[in-house]
Parts: sequence; structure tokens; C-alpha cells
Amino acid sequence: MPNSREWQLVRRPHGWPVPADFRLVEVEVPEPGEGQALVRNLSMSVDPYMRGRMNDAPSYAAPYQLDQPMYGGVVGVVESSNVKGIAAGATVRHGLGWREWAIVPARQLEPVDPAADGVPVSAYLGVLGMPGLTAWVGVHDIAEVRPGETFFVSAASGAVGSIAGQLAKLAGLRVVGSAGSAEKVAWLRDELGFDAAFDYHDGDITELLQKAAPEGVDAYFENVGGDHLRAALAVMNPFGRIAACGMISAYNESRPGPDNMFLVVGKKLTMRGFIVSDHAHREPVFRRNVSGLLRDGRLIFRETHRSGIESALDALLDVLRGGQHVGKMVVDLT
Amino acid sequence: MPNSREWQLVRRPHGWPVPADFRLVEVEVPEPGEGQALVRNLSMSVDPYMRGRMNDAPSYAAPYQLDQPMYGGVVGVVESSNVKGIAAGATVRHGLGWREWAIVPARQLEPVDPAADGVPVSAYLGVLGMPGLTAWVGVHDIAEVRPGETFFVSAASGAVGSIAGQLAKLAGLRVVGSAGSAEKVAWLRDELGFDAAFDYHDGDITELLQKAAPEGVDAYFENVGGDHLRAALAVMNPFGRIAACGMISAYNESRPGPDNMFLVVGKKLTMRGFIVSDHAHREPVFRRNVSGLLRDGRLIFRETHRSGIESALDALLDVLRGGQHVGKMVVDLT
Repeated sequence: MPNSREWQLVRRPHGWPVPADFRLVEVEVPEPGEGQALVRNLSMSVDPYMRGRMNDAPSYAAPYQLDQPMYGGVVGVVESSNVKGIAAGATVRHGLGWREWAIVPARQLEPVDPAADGVPVSAYLGVLGMPGLTAWVGVHDIAEVRPGETFFVSAASGAVGSIAGQLAKLAGLRVVGSAGSAEKVAWLRDELGFDAAFDYHDGDITELLQKAAPEGVDAYFENVGGDHLRAALAVMNPFGRIAACGMISAYNESRPGPDNMFLVVGKKLTMRGFIVSDHAHREPVFRRNVSGLLRDGRLIFRETHRSGIESALDALLDVLRGGQHVGKMVVDLT
Repeated sequence: MPNSREWQLVRRPHGWPVPADFRLVEVEVPEPGEGQALVRNLSMSVDPYMRGRMNDAPSYAAPYQLDQPMYGGVVGVVESSNVKGIAAGATVRHGLGWREWAIVPARQLEPVDPAADGVPVSAYLGVLGMPGLTAWVGVHDIAEVRPGETFFVSAASGAVGSIAGQLAKLAGLRVVGSAGSAEKVAWLRDELGFDAAFDYHDGDITELLQKAAPEGVDAYFENVGGDHLRAALAVMNPFGRIAACGMISAYNESRPGPDNMFLVVGKKLTMRGFIVSDHAHREPVFRRNVSGLLRDGRLIFRETHRSGIESALDALLDVLRGGQHVGKMVVDLT
């Protein structure tokens, strides 16, 4: 049996995670038991929500256990299988990432078909995975977008934001995005077809948003919180909707909230938080539609690849910091 | 024709209003024209939302004009009428308060029948008026309360909060309220039948709320904002709803918002602002039900009366400050 390297949490971070909170260890992989498969992981996901799993606080995501391997979305190839209907050589998605090899119980194994979909295996961690479904649910079910409206998305060049903005555009909205560099802004405008985009470092976010959306914002896809939420509240139109997908600015440091929350009342806004796992029933319609859009070239996705499990922690920290990466961050393990 | 005293706004307040922002002037009342009635105002309303009308900013309520009379809900008796169907002697509700006499156009005149309802005329400014309808809509349509849940209301001894809490109780919820004095807390618990209540001066609001609602909060009726919103976010259960009726803590001073807005995401909360004027279609069901509850003695209301139009400004400032008054604040003009 192979040896496998895996990341463990050894100490719960306070504020920003530091390398000493983790360790990369090599373990022996046992034989798969009855109803299990041995999977060689090919490409693993690092996502902002994983920061929440490092806390001991009750949350929608169960906390990582100390001195145990971390986990998360990953795609791999079955090496050997004691699961009916899953043969060696099959490509599968499952939840035991942060390790090179995994013993995966049958109920977690989800076969995927990159050849049929015409995508790399990593796409099942991004545009055809949890971030894509999150964008779909947020845009259609939570923000309840309608043609002719103006849509604003923060962290617009990220895994979720870049898909959310395009889905809103396809639904007939005017789309505005914010991102953290001139290159990202250019990508949103020139390649993804956003109607307007701005670098949030370029001044007061409220003023930047007002200029980018002079007609006001009807639906805000919230990924950032803090000053971005403040700006959205200031610029939103009456009866606007906020789909609260994440507030990454608050994951690692406590900050005062927006000083204009009272606008929720006068503008009669609806702000609704959501977690994609509550919306798994939308997977079929999402998968059917987004696969089609990808095949037709009407939806663009980008991925940033890091190489080797030893790079996974830095990759996650870069995602939390909002680095120079564009689109979905994945870590290739082979 | 009589002379009438009326309050005018002479300067837009910055922060807390001061007496020099207003003046009380005596004017001659003209004869009512065609389609108008002359009304002797008996009892006028002072409400927190009136602070917003003193600003020039666009808001759901049109701003008061400088050097013009202010206005708002009021009940009076018709002195003379050129309106078909409205006879002298009729009791009417209309929108031209902040003055002793008013020339009221037909479309604003709303006959009321205190003898049939068994209430004082001022009740049409409170429990049977805008605050009562606000409570009804907030509890049933916005917070969407369900039996067995826990309901939290801030400013619970106020005109809206005291009715909202009782309506939630009647709907089968466990009801918790916060208020600003031991006397108010005692009134909530001993007379209104709240299951728990606390004085928000008695410590950290989050801890006070946690103690009062150990099972968590499912629906929060938000009247205050700031630390109250922070506490509600901390204590709310997954899929909780916040009916944002007002945020009185922010009307006169800018304050940082809650530092835990990110809980909206993880707890999948829905926060929805509303303004009662958008829900006028609910007036018939509200009126029918609340009149019945009052007749049956199942709903209790209290009013604080001030006397004379000269006391109206202080009465409004007391409402904004959260003074010692309980229930609906009204100013009797005769």
C-alpha cells in the first residue's frame, strides 16, 4: 500500500492562521475495507469556508479535529474498490481532500465524467462543483434576479463571484463587479463581459460603486462584508436583495460592521444568508444548465493551479488574503 | 375663523434635534374650500420615523419643508365640511398633525368610530393605527412567526414593540423583550405576559439575551439596531428571521455596526426591512383582528399623554431618547 502525505490541524488559529497551526505528515494507507474504495487524489480544493472549520465554535461546517487530517472537496481516480458500481480507474469526487490518498466510503463517492463534459477534473471543484452551485443558488434562488436589474458582486474574480456575475449577465442583468487588481478588473470587463468593474483599492468603495452603478443596485451578491457591504447598502435601490454568500473580510479579524445598517429599513432591503449544502436539490438543474453553457462557450471559467500537497496551505492562505490568483484555486497532487 | 398654532421646521438638525431647529407659530386658518373640511385636531402622534423627515436625504418619507408646518398622524373632529359624506361632528383620522386646526382634503379624511371600537380617539394613532399595523405586518408577514418558536423584540415597551410582543404571544411563541427600565420590564412580564424581559442597561446585551432565551431566538423584531442587533445575531438560531422595523439607535448619531454580521451567512438568517405604508392592503385583516382582541381584553395597550401643542416637540424628543414613557406617545391638543 502507498504512503500518503496529509495536512493536519495541530492548533486552532486565533486571527490569521500561521504555519505552526498545521503540519504535513506522512502516513501509511490501509487496505480499503468492505464498502470502501482507495482513491488517488488528483486535484484538491482550498476554499474560504475552510477557515471556519479551524474554529471550535459551532458553525454550519463541523470543526476540524486537532491532530486529525483536514478534509474538503477533491477529485481523484479509484485505485482499488470494494464498492459495487465503482471500478478501478473511475474518476470520482469526494470529501476527503488535504491528503494524497484516501480510503473513501461508498456514500461519499460521486463519479464524474470530464471527457463527456469536456472539462479538466479540477472543474468539479469549481465551475461544476460547490462554487458553481453556490453561484447558481445565490443568483437565482436567493438574490432572485430579474432581467433589466443591476447586479453587483464582490470578489468578482473569485471562484464563486466570476460565475455569479456571468450567470446574472446571462439572466439579462447589468453586471458590476469589484476585484483587487487592475488585471482582475480587466478580465471581468474584457473577457467575462461585465458591464462595469472596479479595483476596490482605487478609492472609497461607495463612490466607486456609485460611479459604476449610477442607476443603483437591485441585487448584491455578498462575498466580502465590511466596507463592501456598507457601499452596497448605500447604493442599493428600494426592495433590493442581498444574497449573503460569505464575508471573507471578517473570517480572520474582528471589525466593526457597516455604520449604515439602518438603510435596510428605509430601503426595505432583504438580506439573506445561505449555505449551499441546504440547496443540494438544485444540483440537477444547475449541472444541466451550466454544462450546457460550458459546451456552448457561453460561460468562461478560469482556475489557478498550485502543484504538490506541500503547497496547499499557502494556497488556502492566498485565497483568504485575496492574492493575485484568478478564478478557482486548486492544488494538483500528482 | 380660528387661529391655530403649528410647529415648523426652520433648520435641518445635524445629529440630535435641538429646540432652535423648530418654531411654534400662530397662523390664521382659512375657510375650507370645495372638497375640504375644517378639522379641530384632538390628539396628534409623535413617532420616531419623523426624525427621518427632518433630513433632506431621499427617504421613504418625504422630507419636511423648511419654514412649513410639519405633519403626521392625528385624530380630530370635523368643524365644518365641504366633503360629501363627511358631516360636522364626525371623528376623523388624517395626516395633518403638528397643528391645532387643519384644512384637510377629502382623500386624506378617514372616519373612525371610537364608541363602536370602545377606545379613546388616540387609539387610532397607536394600537389601531400605524404602530399597530406595523406590529401586525412585522410579526406575521415579515418575521413569519410560527407557533413554538422564540420571538425577541427590542424597544418592547414602545408603541410598536408592546403590540408586536403580544401578537407573537397570541400566535403561540415564547416571547422575550428588552426595554430601558425596571418598571418597563415589570410591565412586560407582569401585565403583557412576556415570558422573559430584561433592562438593556443591566449588562452586556448578548449575555442578557442568551439568559432570557437559552433556546435561541427564531424571530427578532428589530427596533433598535447597534448592540441589540449584535446580540440578536449572536443568539439567533439557524434560518432565523429578522423583521427590521427601525433602528432608533442610529437616527441621531452615526455608530459602527455590529461586528458579527458574518453570522447572517453561517446561520442562514434572513433580515428584511419594511415600511408599513407598503403593506396598506393588510389594514382590513389587521383592523378586524385587533379590534376583536381589544374587545375581548386579549390585547393590552397603554398610552402616554402629553398636553398642549407646545409639548409636542419635547414629546418627540423623549420618544427618540427612549424616556420613561410606556406605550404610544400622543399629544392632546384640547
